[in-house]
Amino acid sequence: MKLIGYTLAGIGLLAAGLMYMRFAQARADGASAPVFDVKLPAGYRDWKLISVAHEEGNLNDLRAVLGNDIAIKAYRDGKLPFPDGAIIARLAWKYIPSEENNKVFGREQSFVTGDATNVQFMVKDSKKYAATGGWGFAQFDNGNPVDATALAACFTCHVPVKARDYLFTKYAP
Amino acid sequence: MKLIGYTLAGIGLLAAGLMYMRFAQARADGASAPVFDVKLPAGYRDWKLISVAHEEGNLNDLRAVLGNDIAIKAYRDGKLPFPDGAIIARLAWKYIPSEENNKVFGREQSFVTGDATNVQFMVKDSKKYAATGGWGFAQFDNGNPVDATALAACFTCHVPVKARDYLFTKYAP
Repeated sequence: MKLIGYTLAGIGLLAAGLMYMRFAQARADGASAPVFDVKLPAGYRDWKLISVAHEEGNLNDLRAVLGNDIAIKAYRDGKLPFPDGAIIARLAWKYIPSEENNKVFGREQSFVTGDATNVQFMVKDSKKYAATGGWGFAQFDNGNPVDATALAACFTCHVPVKARDYLFTKYAP
Repeated sequence: MKLIGYTLAGIGLLAAGLMYMRFAQARADGASAPVFDVKLPAGYRDWKLISVAHEEGNLNDLRAVLGNDIAIKAYRDGKLPFPDGAIIARLAWKYIPSEENNKVFGREQSFVTGDATNVQFMVKDSKKYAATGGWGFAQFDNGNPVDATALAACFTCHVPVKARDYLFTKYAP
C-alpha cells in the first residue's frame, strides 16, 4: 500500500512538473507572459447566467458570471473538460449600499451594483491555448483589452481548480 | 410660493389617498390580500441579466435579477411604464464564504452562492393587476407557489419606487 501511495505521489509530481515545464517553455518561446489574442466577444451581455458572487478587499465588487451557449450546456451537463468554443464572461460592478432599498427594509442591509469595473473572459481552445489548460484569458477595461502582462498570473491562479477544468465558478441552479 | 407648496403637498396626499383607496377597494372586493395568479414562467433561468445584489440581515443572500425579452428591452430603452408582458425574475441563493477562492486570494474576501432560497416574479398586466400598479407578484419555494397572504405586502413595499414603475432594480450595464 505504501508503495502504491509513493508511486501515485510520484506520478502527481511528475505531471505537475511536466505542466510547469510546458508553461515555462511557452513563456520562453515567445514573450515574458502568455500571449492571448482574445477579442471582446459580441453579445456577451445577453448570455445566460452561471452564477453571482461578491468579492471584498481591493476588488470590492458584485459580479455576475455568464456563459455562451456552449459553456452553459457544459455546465448544466456537468461535462468536463469544457468543449472548444466555450466562453465564460465575468462582469463586475462596484459594490455600493442602496439607501433607497435600506429605507424600505428599515435597516442597512442592501448592496447593489455601482459603476462597472471590468469584464474578464475565459475562452476554450484546447490547441491554441494548450499551455494554459486550453483556456485563453482576457480582460477589458471600458472595452479596451488590458496589456498581456496583466494576464500573466491568470492561469497560475486557476490551477488549484484544475479538476473542474480551471473554473472557480460553480453553476447556481 | 407657500401656497404652491401647500397645493403640491395636497395633490401628493390626495394621489396617495386615492391609490390607497383603490388598493383597499381591491382588497375589500375579494380576499384579505390581493389575489395574484402568476404561474412559474417557463424558461426563466435562461433569461438575460438585469443586475445582481446582496442582501444582509435575515435574507443574507446573493441575488440575480433576470428579465424576459420584453422586460430587458424596456430596461435598455429606458421605457416607462413597462409594457404588458414584461416579467422580472428575482433568483436568490444563500450567501456563503468560499474557502476555495479565499485560499487563492490569500485572504477572506470571497462570497459565493449556496443553496437556492426562493424565486420571485413581477408580471406586468396593466388591466389584470391595475390595483397594484399593473404588476402581479409571485414567489415560489422549491417550485411551489407561496400562499397569497405572503404576497400581501409586496406592492406596498414597491410604492416608494413608483417613479420607476415600482422596480427597485436598476439595469447594470
